[in-house]
Amino acid sequence: MIRSFLFSLFWFHSCGGEAKGRSMTSPLPWKQLLLVALDSNAHLQHSHFFQLATVGLNGRPSNRTVVFRGFQEGSEKIQINTDSRSSKIDELKAFPFGEICWYFTDSWEQFRINGKIDLIDASNSDPVKLQQREKAWFASSLRSRLQYTGSTPGLPCISEEPSKECHLDPSAGPVGAFCLLVMDPDQVDYLNLKSNERLMFTSTWNEEGDAKHWTSERINP
Amino acid sequence: MIRSFLFSLFWFHSCGGEAKGRSMTSPLPWKQLLLVALDSNAHLQHSHFFQLATVGLNGRPSNRTVVFRGFQEGSEKIQINTDSRSSKIDELKAFPFGEICWYFTDSWEQFRINGKIDLIDASNSDPVKLQQREKAWFASSLRSRLQYTGSTPGLPCISEEPSKECHLDPSAGPVGAFCLLVMDPDQVDYLNLKSNERLMFTSTWNEEGDAKHWTSERINP
Repeated sequence: MIRSFLFSLFWFHSCGGEAKGRSMTSPLPWKQLLLVALDSNAHLQHSHFFQLATVGLNGRPSNRTVVFRGFQEGSEKIQINTDSRSSKIDELKAFPFGEICWYFTDSWEQFRINGKIDLIDASNSDPVKLQQREKAWFASSLRSRLQYTGSTPGLPCISEEPSKECHLDPSAGPVGAFCLLVMDPDQVDYLNLKSNERLMFTSTWNEEGDAKHWTSERINP
Repeated sequence: MIRSFLFSLFWFHSCGGEAKGRSMTSPLPWKQLLLVALDSNAHLQHSHFFQLATVGLNGRPSNRTVVFRGFQEGSEKIQINTDSRSSKIDELKAFPFGEICWYFTDSWEQFRINGKIDLIDASNSDPVKLQQREKAWFASSLRSRLQYTGSTPGLPCISEEPSKECHLDPSAGPVGAFCLLVMDPDQVDYLNLKSNERLMFTSTWNEEGDAKHWTSERINP
């Protein structure tokens, strides 16, 4: 499928590069590759959008576009804001794993990022996580924050009237419906359609379980 | 999440339109909406790319960019070409459901299309399906067809040499690795971020099981 995708763009070249067919510590970690991609596609507003797949309550895959809200400070964890009333919340409570598919339309790069997703809503008991949620709230524009005061997403639209304009105190903390999702990636499949390179980044934890180690392998596109 | 997405683009307006909070036969079926979106985004090469989510063999969601290969003739079934050696094939054999997330970056429309996926490879016993596969093969460019003669996707890249140029007889039928996927949608969640409208299209089969009926409902974005 990736190949089908690739060939719709340009002619096939064989794999190139130095390190083939062996596990290696990547010269450029996936997060760096992602930061470079974000930079080279920064002129496109949609470069901050990606598709997040989860498993629905009926077992079927579920997939939607969401907005990248940056990495959690000093980490490779990916932040997403969402409405705690949206269906993905129940899905993630039942099965907290997701895969991001992030395609950069200008640089022809794809990142498939798989990992566990932590859900931080108002009921979270961890004060550090609640602080992260508050930080994400204040990092959002006032307009973004206002959305969480609206009607429940996905329910039938019953209002015949325009919604009343709602004012939020800019200094007020997160409303109940505001939820921060934090994905901790454990595998990243990177595809560059210009160089026709594909790298699989895989993480393992050390014995103490407090440090993650990434390796990468060049694989066939 | 959709709201977070929406608000990253523009200011929130209340739901508008004629038919609110009730089930209705849509004035414009989802396939028509999709054809209009394809037309209005036709100047963008990536408008034919979407993200297909499946459920991986480990139960986790899996998500990748694929290329729209048109509707199956006279139907609303969506065609995708893929390599029968790619991992999604085993995934779909184990659980044949997927969700497409298709975001149009110019018209700000999103289609989330959920349905069962039929897998048509060389071993298929249905002659009609094998004809469809052959038709999809010949509808692809020669360059696209050549990809299926390459190394197994996802395996370590071991070749140090540029791949030999391979020639395919333009009149030769599909090679073994060529696989046609056909999604038969049964639910479509449509979001228009310019009009701030969201419609949920749901299908039901008649008692005889030979005709599908679609209804739509306006829901909160």
